[in-house]
Amino acid sequence: MLRTHTCGELRLADVNKQVTLAGWVQRQRDKGSVLWIDLRDRYGITQLIFEEGKTDAALFSVARGAGREYVLQVEGTVVERLSKNDKIATGEVEVKVSKLTILNTAKLPPFTIEDETDGGDDLRMKYRYLDLRRNPVREKLQLRHKMAQQTRAYLDGQEFIEVETPVLIKSTPEGARDFVVPSRIHHGEFYALPQSPQTFKQLLMVSGFDRYYQIVKCFRDEDLRADRQPEFTQIDCEMAFITQEDILNTFEGLVRHLFKNVKGIELPSVPRMFYDDAMKLYGSDKPDTRFDMKFVEITELTKGKNFPVFESAELVVGINAKGCSEYTRKQIDELTEYVKRPQVGAKGLVYLQYRTDGTLKSSVDKFYTPEELKAWAVKFNAQPGDLILLLAGESYTTRKQLNELRLLMGEKLGLRDKSKFSALWVIDFPLLEWNEETKRYHAMHHPFTSPKIEDLHLLDTDPGKVRANAYDMVINGTEVGGGSIRIHDRPTQQLMFNHLGFTEEEAKKQFGFLMDAFEFGAPPHGGIAFGFDRLCSIFGGVDSIRDFIAFPKNNAGKDVMIDSPSPISDEQLKELALTVKK
Amino acid sequence: MLRTHTCGELRLADVNKQVTLAGWVQRQRDKGSVLWIDLRDRYGITQLIFEEGKTDAALFSVARGAGREYVLQVEGTVVERLSKNDKIATGEVEVKVSKLTILNTAKLPPFTIEDETDGGDDLRMKYRYLDLRRNPVREKLQLRHKMAQQTRAYLDGQEFIEVETPVLIKSTPEGARDFVVPSRIHHGEFYALPQSPQTFKQLLMVSGFDRYYQIVKCFRDEDLRADRQPEFTQIDCEMAFITQEDILNTFEGLVRHLFKNVKGIELPSVPRMFYDDAMKLYGSDKPDTRFDMKFVEITELTKGKNFPVFESAELVVGINAKGCSEYTRKQIDELTEYVKRPQVGAKGLVYLQYRTDGTLKSSVDKFYTPEELKAWAVKFNAQPGDLILLLAGESYTTRKQLNELRLLMGEKLGLRDKSKFSALWVIDFPLLEWNEETKRYHAMHHPFTSPKIEDLHLLDTDPGKVRANAYDMVINGTEVGGGSIRIHDRPTQQLMFNHLGFTEEEAKKQFGFLMDAFEFGAPPHGGIAFGFDRLCSIFGGVDSIRDFIAFPKNNAGKDVMIDSPSPISDEQLKELALTVKK
Repeated sequence: MLRTHTCGELRLADVNKQVTLAGWVQRQRDKGSVLWIDLRDRYGITQLIFEEGKTDAALFSVARGAGREYVLQVEGTVVERLSKNDKIATGEVEVKVSKLTILNTAKLPPFTIEDETDGGDDLRMKYRYLDLRRNPVREKLQLRHKMAQQTRAYLDGQEFIEVETPVLIKSTPEGARDFVVPSRIHHGEFYALPQSPQTFKQLLMVSGFDRYYQIVKCFRDEDLRADRQPEFTQIDCEMAFITQEDILNTFEGLVRHLFKNVKGIELPSVPRMFYDDAMKLYGSDKPDTRFDMKFVEITELTKGKNFPVFESAELVVGINAKGCSEYTRKQIDELTEYVKRPQVGAKGLVYLQYRTDGTLKSSVDKFYTPEELKAWAVKFNAQPGDLILLLAGESYTTRKQLNELRLLMGEKLGLRDKSKFSALWVIDFPLLEWNEETKRYHAMHHPFTSPKIEDLHLLDTDPGKVRANAYDMVINGTEVGGGSIRIHDRPTQQLMFNHLGFTEEEAKKQFGFLMDAFEFGAPPHGGIAFGFDRLCSIFGGVDSIRDFIAFPKNNAGKDVMIDSPSPISDEQLKELALTVKK
Repeated sequence: MLRTHTCGELRLADVNKQVTLAGWVQRQRDKGSVLWIDLRDRYGITQLIFEEGKTDAALFSVARGAGREYVLQVEGTVVERLSKNDKIATGEVEVKVSKLTILNTAKLPPFTIEDETDGGDDLRMKYRYLDLRRNPVREKLQLRHKMAQQTRAYLDGQEFIEVETPVLIKSTPEGARDFVVPSRIHHGEFYALPQSPQTFKQLLMVSGFDRYYQIVKCFRDEDLRADRQPEFTQIDCEMAFITQEDILNTFEGLVRHLFKNVKGIELPSVPRMFYDDAMKLYGSDKPDTRFDMKFVEITELTKGKNFPVFESAELVVGINAKGCSEYTRKQIDELTEYVKRPQVGAKGLVYLQYRTDGTLKSSVDKFYTPEELKAWAVKFNAQPGDLILLLAGESYTTRKQLNELRLLMGEKLGLRDKSKFSALWVIDFPLLEWNEETKRYHAMHHPFTSPKIEDLHLLDTDPGKVRANAYDMVINGTEVGGGSIRIHDRPTQQLMFNHLGFTEEEAKKQFGFLMDAFEFGAPPHGGIAFGFDRLCSIFGGVDSIRDFIAFPKNNAGKDVMIDSPSPISDEQLKELALTVKK
């Protein structure tokens, strides 16, 4: 090795040792007769000292010429520092350098390699290899590494077998758009990159592998939007001979193991909530349960008083923002503006202030008596100091809108602390959801999800009401994982494809191999997949997933560092028998 | 769980326990009044017993109807077996079944699910999920799992960080052919799938990650041949601030860790051999060192005796096949036929039998005196009982041919035992190799490999003689891994590209990002990549890598199970702005 120690290693106990370090020049402080260099590597920073009269003059001069980000190898003696720095682990010592080799020079970086940099997003993406030198970015990838190792440690301990499934598979029409890979040997034919290893992991269950996992790259050629990547990573798992209960317990175990071993947090056992309740109480299938502020419905209490908005509403529903009764007119106007934004889409906001002096003030005072408003407050279990915020309209839409408002109020009240964690299982998702665009039902999870047997009779009459053996894990209002108990017999799978609008022929062409497999002794099975990039970002307390990916693509799906995608040669196109239409 | 125990778990100590098992019917033995079923899962086999008069009649009848590969759940009592089976771990007990549920039926499999199956290759590929049920296949994937876990355990212990590099990257002209992925958003532009994460891992070194690894899928669109897969897996590693010595030690450590922890074998420390010596002594850069049989050159001894073949030969070289002196004429003819095959390409074979009676017999007796032949034998250090086999011709070609013969003789003499392991580092590979087809030098390892500084002066005058800081690990005559110390400065990298025939513009377009990175403080670095599929197959003592891959493609690059590659829809092509030329 070109070093005896790392730059994060030396302590007082090492004083007088001869050491060799290697790393990058973080900064220089030049006091004329004394020169200090902070030498940085992945493990930390160690201060080097060069003193006029004590350090060889030629060496001193070379050291002074070593600019930011130069790569140095130094030999020297560990000495105790006069003025210690308790902010870094090596802050009690410095190295008196007796030999210095410049391993490489460096041009001035296009942005500062500091925790807070002056580089904009585009520049940092182009020079990603420099951005990765910054502590906050490097630490995110180190966290990811730890998450991956701990995930494997837990699953290995539970007798899961890691199996690699293929990346060059077959394009299927269901789900998002596939990336495809033209075959050079079979012209006109294409492989597809997997959106998930779903069918393969099910086949492994048919094979008897019984407990499978893989931390695996998946691909979706979706229209890009902020913080979505064309390639992403899943913790992909499947188990056989289990019930839903076993899956929930096993993967609650995984998440608690990760919190304990990566963050040192003892997560309490993960509560479960029916999808219907989540929608009713939070207007979301991924409620942020770091805070309460559940929905309260007061539709009945508002009827017959000639307030047209409530009179015509299918649902009047609200939240209690505790401690906000003294919001100013301006503050409440801002909330109204917020819910009226196109992204939220409400027509307006009704408020009821339960003032600290015990009086009630509402935007609908002229329609309701103080007694009637008091009854609302009671229903909300409100206290003086509370602010009730109400939306009205069609049930589903109104709940969705109120969810946005609830999240905003949670934010304002500081209830969405990124260092706090609240996990939740949402269970009993609907099997199907109506798609207005295609005018047919789509699988809410995927076509391999089993319906609840007791709901099967609704499949023809009221398909939207059929519940699935499907579950999501939600942490802090973000879906981090989802799965289901799968169909494991051919007739049910065929029935499912029928209801999703597949002809029998299409189903056979696309998924015949899976249905065939179900006829050769398929065990009951189910599984889950966690979005690994997202899970890491939540553990890191950061909204964006981008910095948890070493070399991410930008919002146009481009890697601007390597300039990809890019044109290929005519020869390549010819070999693939392809022409590009301009 | 649908079971209390696995099918590999029950022992005498469990007798009288009430248990629930789930698994597949391996076989039935029906003695009329007694019926046994072997129930199988991933963990083993447990015998179930049903007895007329003792077992409920309806249950007995259902059990009798449960054919091969049916999926059963049974409840019952563990009892001691009358006739024990010491071939299986559960062989001392059986389960007296009191309840049986058929979890799924099974059609008759197209081949038998036994260690030795009657299914041909094609059938087993089509029904891969059934082939995976067979013990020998399942065990190979379990071995692979263990190899992966132990690889990570070792590298984690050495402070390597696992970093995922992108799969959608950029097509580069160097190396094998890329698989490409058309962009739907940027028409006419393509991503490429990585042949290796080479440039990314080097960028991670520039970033200061210092020790990187990844068990990662790589892709090569090469012309297919037996036992080559378009997608394969590498253990990919890179280190900074190291010398070649550090890399060799670290990864010798990995391989010895794997042998110890996966196979319980203490591998001795791995010897090192110069490439030049390997070629001279074995005619191969990946010699099988499980056996000696080194080449001996006797060119000088053969000259001037009017044997035309030797007279005109640049090199006369042979091996000593110990104990083969009494080979019959027929056996020697077979060896001659072997070396004359087009795949080997020799013109003929000269032999010298050092008979057990001390006499010498040779195919060139009329050109050489017994004394001259004796001198050959001395050079070979031959003893009575030995057979010397000689080839002659142009040095490089002749050595290659003799390598084939050496391997054949090793095989014949039982010296290539798959349960024995011999590892070797081959070092100091040439930097460049001449390609007759393109009439230019190609990088022998890859364009990022550093030349030996002491050979740099030969780059213009005798490029083929420049040695590289490049090394391969060879086990049992197979290259399992290779790597190099990399170039880490722009001028040398540019020089290298020049010598590989890149224009400056091409080099910049393809690898500008890497050369840019080298200007911002790149540390000395190097690395290695192991072929994980191959490494597993060697550990498994099997020649083919295919069964160490869960879902392999066939020799035409097809997955016949899912029928991939396959045509995509016109709509997909249109979205990608592509047309297929028929």
